[in-house]
Amino acid sequence: MASRFDGLRALYLNGTLTPSPAASHTDTLIEASAHVLREQGVEVDVVRLVDHRVAPGVQPDMTEHGAERDDWPQIWQRVAAADILVLAGPIWLGDNSSQTRLAIERLYAHSGELNDKGQAVFYGKVGGALIGGNEDGLKHCTGVILHALQHLGVTIPPNAEAGWIGEAGPGPSYGDELDDGSRAGFDNDFTQKNITFMAWNLMHMAAILRDVGGIPAEGNLPEEWQQGSRWGFQNPEYR
Amino acid sequence: MASRFDGLRALYLNGTLTPSPAASHTDTLIEASAHVLREQGVEVDVVRLVDHRVAPGVQPDMTEHGAERDDWPQIWQRVAAADILVLAGPIWLGDNSSQTRLAIERLYAHSGELNDKGQAVFYGKVGGALIGGNEDGLKHCTGVILHALQHLGVTIPPNAEAGWIGEAGPGPSYGDELDDGSRAGFDNDFTQKNITFMAWNLMHMAAILRDVGGIPAEGNLPEEWQQGSRWGFQNPEYR
Amino acid sequence: MASRFDGLRALYLNGTLTPSPAASHTDTLIEASAHVLREQGVEVDVVRLVDHRVAPGVQPDMTEHGAERDDWPQIWQRVAAADILVLAGPIWLGDNSSQTRLAIERLYAHSGELNDKGQAVFYGKVGGALIGGNEDGLKHCTGVILHALQHLGVTIPPNAEAGWIGEAGPGPSYGDELDDGSRAGFDNDFTQKNITFMAWNLMHMAAILRDVGGIPAEGNLPEEWQQGSRWGFQNPEYR
Amino acid sequence: MASRFDGLRALYLNGTLTPSPAASHTDTLIEASAHVLREQGVEVDVVRLVDHRVAPGVQPDMTEHGAERDDWPQIWQRVAAADILVLAGPIWLGDNSSQTRLAIERLYAHSGELNDKGQAVFYGKVGGALIGGNEDGLKHCTGVILHALQHLGVTIPPNAEAGWIGEAGPGPSYGDELDDGSRAGFDNDFTQKNITFMAWNLMHMAAILRDVGGIPAEGNLPEEWQQGSRWGFQNPEYR
Repeated sequence: MASRFDGLRALYLNGTLTPSPAASHTDTLIEASAHVLREQGVEVDVVRLVDHRVAPGVQPDMTEHGAERDDWPQIWQRVAAADILVLAGPIWLGDNSSQTRLAIERLYAHSGELNDKGQAVFYGKVGGALIGGNEDGLKHCTGVILHALQHLGVTIPPNAEAGWIGEAGPGPSYGDELDDGSRAGFDNDFTQKNITFMAWNLMHMAAILRDVGGIPAEGNLPEEWQQGSRWGFQNPEYR
Repeated sequence: MASRFDGLRALYLNGTLTPSPAASHTDTLIEASAHVLREQGVEVDVVRLVDHRVAPGVQPDMTEHGAERDDWPQIWQRVAAADILVLAGPIWLGDNSSQTRLAIERLYAHSGELNDKGQAVFYGKVGGALIGGNEDGLKHCTGVILHALQHLGVTIPPNAEAGWIGEAGPGPSYGDELDDGSRAGFDNDFTQKNITFMAWNLMHMAAILRDVGGIPAEGNLPEEWQQGSRWGFQNPEYR
Repeated sequence: MASRFDGLRALYLNGTLTPSPAASHTDTLIEASAHVLREQGVEVDVVRLVDHRVAPGVQPDMTEHGAERDDWPQIWQRVAAADILVLAGPIWLGDNSSQTRLAIERLYAHSGELNDKGQAVFYGKVGGALIGGNEDGLKHCTGVILHALQHLGVTIPPNAEAGWIGEAGPGPSYGDELDDGSRAGFDNDFTQKNITFMAWNLMHMAAILRDVGGIPAEGNLPEEWQQGSRWGFQNPEYR
Repeated sequence: MASRFDGLRALYLNGTLTPSPAASHTDTLIEASAHVLREQGVEVDVVRLVDHRVAPGVQPDMTEHGAERDDWPQIWQRVAAADILVLAGPIWLGDNSSQTRLAIERLYAHSGELNDKGQAVFYGKVGGALIGGNEDGLKHCTGVILHALQHLGVTIPPNAEAGWIGEAGPGPSYGDELDDGSRAGFDNDFTQKNITFMAWNLMHMAAILRDVGGIPAEGNLPEEWQQGSRWGFQNPEYR
């Protein structure tokens, strides 16, 4: 059956500290989210950053700046192809992981690139955040991620964050088997609902932006600004 | 001349600590932003919260919960009427002001209300953040605001933040007259550009959402979820 | 029995949005913490800010700046008398409450005042943060509070944060009666331990600073700095 | 001349993304701070994390958990030897760098280790944060760092943060040569003062803790807690 979401592509960047093939709690969250997307015909791609040699830095290709090796340029091709971009990761000491920060830094490296309309290259993409931890920090971590994404030019639809955290203190992470054989967080209605609403809103907004041809190219063109276009801006009268 | 933005309404909530008629630096930022919107036919409304008696609390009308007086219900009518909602405010010790937090708390009080499609009442609105300070904290403050807005159901377009801050340390705020007669921040190209891009992206996204009839009502309906709709959600296989 | 903590004074500022006499979850956390202090001879004072008319602003007495009424100056006397200063409060949408922000703003108003050694007036005080919510945000909220306190001149001892939050999603707050008659968070070992360690470290550090006469007055005197003292500072060689 | 700070050791962890021998703006900040310490007889050590192969993870030695190589255990010896621990780094998109997060994650890996008193192994250390960027984020980044340090058991003295950021927008970083031959940030009185006050307060507090034999071992011993010691904690009466 044709879906209005056919042909959309989503990329999840997983900022776990755990290399494959070991299980990643973040991956379990991604699976829950990606399942909703795939069922609607969205093509899903997942990159676990720690499995690659992504060089530190804020340039698109760090081998041009002294790095021996840099797998980011290949990952960037997958970012560039995505209509939907989700940053997913764990919480450590209440904040995003070093791998999630690395993802943000490398995305930021492309902030000066333009799309074919002359807007920042992230314009037209739709973004979200998916965070898991044994306790505390979901909103702070997603807030930082969503801020970074909109700063780059990604559109953030309603309820673009989801995840699971347990009660204060040490404890199981999302998907861990509990003593009674159940899985931590799997019965959490709030988590289920947020994953679902986020997934649908990402699809809705990506389909809308595809249908209307992206964000209109007026008032948001860096090169025209630099050449003097002001689109109505003027300094306020001082009072 | 007809503009595709005619009929759109924008509301700026100003979280300054300074009551009228004293000047508010945040108001100067709002003026710069609102000018771009007005020129395109958007109807602009501004509320300086501190001029009102907004009761602390997280209910829509705190007089029903013991408050002597609460001006929020009137302000809420203006929020409800807005297509574009911008939270604006100062920075104190690196964070949002108590009045900005008050605004977020009172908006949050309406998080359980639904629009006529059955979505959270904020769905269909577009939001942004406007922050000024003499130094440091713009991104943190806007990040917290934009997170709150998307959490409530507001859509965040690209580059939905703007403002001005000076170099580290005490100094003038946006619009203050400097020794040479110029105004602090008025010659800052980055500030001007961000105010402009933010204004246009707010208008673009509000017009798009008006044109397409808002966020489609599938996968994001709290009451249907509660009644058992899952829209494809299922817990992941454990691996 | 004499305790080495006899004569120390602690002040808890409660940033709940709920006026007395209604119960405040934050107050329940404060009680747990204050009990440990009182048992060791510390004199405990508690201020629920929302019960007072604290004017918005960043001056010590806002009646001198147009406010009709301002209860802060009286509260400040209680802050000034305290060896231990704890900011306590709820979490709303992942962040500190408007009343907690108000407390920080009004404390900040005194940042230019000096103690009798010529240091910022907060030098010699010891501080902590106590946060409760139904879910998520404890570390972010305490991080912001502790940052503000050290910025003002308060010393932060080890493990100066405590509180309780539940699993992701709506749910009971600290001390709420559960279906089985137990109280939410009361059986949380992590919460109990953190409250205890925080209480003791606040007392230890306050006693140490009392014993040694506070932070020595060298390298931290604003007026001497302004008059040219540099205490060894020099700009780095450029390389 | 004997100084009361003789024999104290300080370690700066530099979270720059730039490997040696290229210049690091963070290093310039570290030099400014370290100069004050060295002049008082403090032995200073600096680690630029990106020059090492520090494996991602939250265990003390990641080679025991599958990593091919991990330089952290050697760096940890230098942390363990330090009385003063400063996390320093750049700002990217308003937040700490991936290398700074890596440092925090690896420090966190040792949170279960105890000192010879039975306290967390970080007890007795004193900490601070040093942040530089071309604009915006100093307080947020230092807040996150100082929160992490106190959480681990480090004491935070007054004014334990310093750094430099420029006006909103792209621009030079600390120490960059400007058109007039001067260095960015070098004439900033606020930056100079904060570096100085922070340096002295780190030394004062480290000397105090050395003199008094560290934080007294009562009310803060994880193993005794686990064995049932409560040091006066009891759940509050419910009201």
